[in-house]
Amino acid sequence: MASGLGTHTGGGTGKETLPEAMRRAAHDVETALDDLLPVPDGGEARLYEAMRYATLGGGKRLRAFLAMEGASLFKVDRRCAARVGAAIEMVHAYSLVHDDLPAMDDDDLRRGKPSTHKAFDEATAILAGDALQTRAFEVLAQDDTHSNPDARCDLVVGLAHAAGAAGMCGGQMLDIQAEGRSLTGEEIIRLQALKTGRLIQFSAEAGAILGRAPPLQRHMLVAYGRDLGAAFQIADDLLDAEGSAEEVGKATGKDAAAGKATLVSILGLERARAQARMLAAQAAGHLDSFGERADLLRDLAAYVVARRT
Amino acid sequence: MASGLGTHTGGGTGKETLPEAMRRAAHDVETALDDLLPVPDGGEARLYEAMRYATLGGGKRLRAFLAMEGASLFKVDRRCAARVGAAIEMVHAYSLVHDDLPAMDDDDLRRGKPSTHKAFDEATAILAGDALQTRAFEVLAQDDTHSNPDARCDLVVGLAHAAGAAGMCGGQMLDIQAEGRSLTGEEIIRLQALKTGRLIQFSAEAGAILGRAPPLQRHMLVAYGRDLGAAFQIADDLLDAEGSAEEVGKATGKDAAAGKATLVSILGLERARAQARMLAAQAAGHLDSFGERADLLRDLAAYVVARRT
Repeated sequence: MASGLGTHTGGGTGKETLPEAMRRAAHDVETALDDLLPVPDGGEARLYEAMRYATLGGGKRLRAFLAMEGASLFKVDRRCAARVGAAIEMVHAYSLVHDDLPAMDDDDLRRGKPSTHKAFDEATAILAGDALQTRAFEVLAQDDTHSNPDARCDLVVGLAHAAGAAGMCGGQMLDIQAEGRSLTGEEIIRLQALKTGRLIQFSAEAGAILGRAPPLQRHMLVAYGRDLGAAFQIADDLLDAEGSAEEVGKATGKDAAAGKATLVSILGLERARAQARMLAAQAAGHLDSFGERADLLRDLAAYVVARRT
Repeated sequence: MASGLGTHTGGGTGKETLPEAMRRAAHDVETALDDLLPVPDGGEARLYEAMRYATLGGGKRLRAFLAMEGASLFKVDRRCAARVGAAIEMVHAYSLVHDDLPAMDDDDLRRGKPSTHKAFDEATAILAGDALQTRAFEVLAQDDTHSNPDARCDLVVGLAHAAGAAGMCGGQMLDIQAEGRSLTGEEIIRLQALKTGRLIQFSAEAGAILGRAPPLQRHMLVAYGRDLGAAFQIADDLLDAEGSAEEVGKATGKDAAAGKATLVSILGLERARAQARMLAAQAAGHLDSFGERADLLRDLAAYVVARRT
């Protein structure tokens, strides 16, 4: 389990490996999500069930891990960090629920199971996505997330900027408009930075906000998150181009079928792979000043470009 | 313009009438919304245009007026109050955009013009609703809204509770599930309290939060908002049952056509009217301790049950 080289992640008696640390973060964020989304009595129970269906038990929890591992650099209480991780995962989950709708990407499969609108219905899926977003901001602003209300406001503003029209929603708009026309490499990079990059970047920044980090350290985590997000997206496009649906847990080959340009279609497989590796190395480089405490975040950068699912 | 009985609203040299005060609040919140939703360059401009289409130039701004008039009881800076009014109107507008979608209520007409998904398209309407909700929380948490971060967090938590699964979204879920079966009077009251009541109640409470009001005064504004919201909903159902689409600015007779039970269908027109008037009087009664400073909020209670649009 542990190889005994240090205790920088605070998780036990030895140094955790990346897979161990990711499993532990996924477990802790799952517990937090379960606590934060209790099912009430009454007819609205169906809404909560859809919110839980869309959020619990799924994914690698990359974003939550980033927030929690970033927070651990500043010895932030793990329960507070898990709440922030849970809030970010709620926003990520809401975006997937809405993206999968027939009027959007029209996907029936997500994380290897039916999309929320297939498991429930379209109206419930729209509402569940809406209410997940609301709950995320509620959680961030509540006292239990941080004793300092300035930090809580920082988290709300940061997540909103990453998720809203200047971030994720804006990127999704660009993506919709891109169908049927060819984008330049620069346009693709900007689209992906908005659509998926901003939220990954904020996830890394959230650790610094929770830790009330000095501006330079916060800036380094932002830079790390930005490059990591860009590397992650190219890796995702490579998986879509190369992987099988069985491996990846969702439909693959979609980009090509939809005529969507990605950096992979512009650069080709080999150059896209090289670009992803370069971005991952650049991401890790931003962490130099944190020393070996940031080893797991460095390992993560290598992992996102090597993963097969 | 002014009848010279006092200066309690701070709007000029004389006492403002309710229509004057509502027009002034609507103007100020419109200016705030225009400032808070600037259209950028780039392909995502279409998203902002849809957000503005859904939000600007529409409605009586009842919720914003409640927040701003409540805040004026505590002499809150009007620009801060207008930001909060704008945030609440963004959430209200997002809920209308999503409610009007084909998978939800499937309404082509809203405030006398095509619904957002008719003027743009479904995908853009879903995204515009999403991004309006995000922007609302961002605005509340930003420094410009209040100098005290505890107040800003209070606003975020309060709006989220009113708008999320425990409020507006939960009420909409109940509403969807109610189609085709008959609800009891109690079930209808609960449904409407969640679907429209909570946000109106929060709008009144927001003034007290901005004013850092003592708990008793905050409680009185909450009670006022709760009863006002209930009166407003019955009045809305009466308009649906009695009004013409031309007068009301949206399709009428929908509830009966959809087989939706309302208090009007259970109580009949006359008893429903009496119930609305009773609730409005009860709402006004909660304001006694504020003296004549709260005259406009009292007038508003009478107005919501007498309005014809």
